Amino acid sequence: MTSTVTAATPMQVLELYRAAVYAKDVEALMQLYAPDVQVFDMWGTWAYEGAGAWRTSVSDWFGSLGDDLVRVEMEDVQHTQSGELAVLSAFVTYRGMSAQGQELRSMNNRLTLVCRQDGGGWQVIHEHSSSPADFESGKVMLRRG
Amino acid sequence: MTSTVTAATPMQVLELYRAAVYAKDVEALMQLYAPDVQVFDMWGTWAYEGAGAWRTSVSDWFGSLGDDLVRVEMEDVQHTQSGELAVLSAFVTYRGMSAQGQELRSMNNRLTLVCRQDGGGWQVIHEHSSSPADFESGKVMLRRG
Repeated sequence: MTSTVTAATPMQVLELYRAAVYAKDVEALMQLYAPDVQVFDMWGTWAYEGAGAWRTSVSDWFGSLGDDLVRVEMEDVQHTQSGELAVLSAFVTYRGMSAQGQELRSMNNRLTLVCRQDGGGWQVIHEHSSSPADFESGKVMLRRG
Repeated sequence: MTSTVTAATPMQVLELYRAAVYAKDVEALMQLYAPDVQVFDMWGTWAYEGAGAWRTSVSDWFGSLGDDLVRVEMEDVQHTQSGELAVLSAFVTYRGMSAQGQELRSMNNRLTLVCRQDGGGWQVIHEHSSSPADFESGKVMLRRG
């Protein structure tokens, strides 16, 4: 499935992100990212520099899910915009669901998205996702509640 | 020691941050932050909302250092600016030094700073710092190299 939708507003980036992840649609998701995007992802890698590197990671993620689906929820979204830049921050819940709609697992993240207006729409130029680490154990906390 | 220096450019925020941390000067550091700042810090807490909450955390950090000093180094700084918003990203090394100048420990972080121009200068309105987590152990990686 290939989508040609681009984000008309910074907030729409979040909507399209949610939809692309649920659809496990690499092309739709990658349309949200600028070619020169830098991603500080939560897991395993210090930085993905450029859409090509990030696409590989996204493809691996979607490919690892099998029949499962991921439902994305955003809470406490903050939004600032000036000129051609916009910044969004939010707390994200990723819910792994079976194809039958049963919740299998869930995880909380903090998300910062920096978007740039470019011709027809808004694209992500920098993404930073993480969870805080427990100082004693060094382990990331996966539940905000 | 109280400083009245404010950042004339987004890049100067980094310089003043370095100097304030090395001096363990809470007032100088807090001048870099807007009253409504949101901080996603690496350790223990999901978010600090507002300069008051962040000030408490900074005071605790500096207070915990005793005679030690912290040297901050920034690498691969990326900088984007439009209108009254600027975004900086960097890889940071925090080096714990004895008062005699001996290196005691060091740690790498990823840092995203969102700055807003407000009257006389630039202030941080959103900070996100983290290190990636190892998928198997769930532990944060503290060395980039």
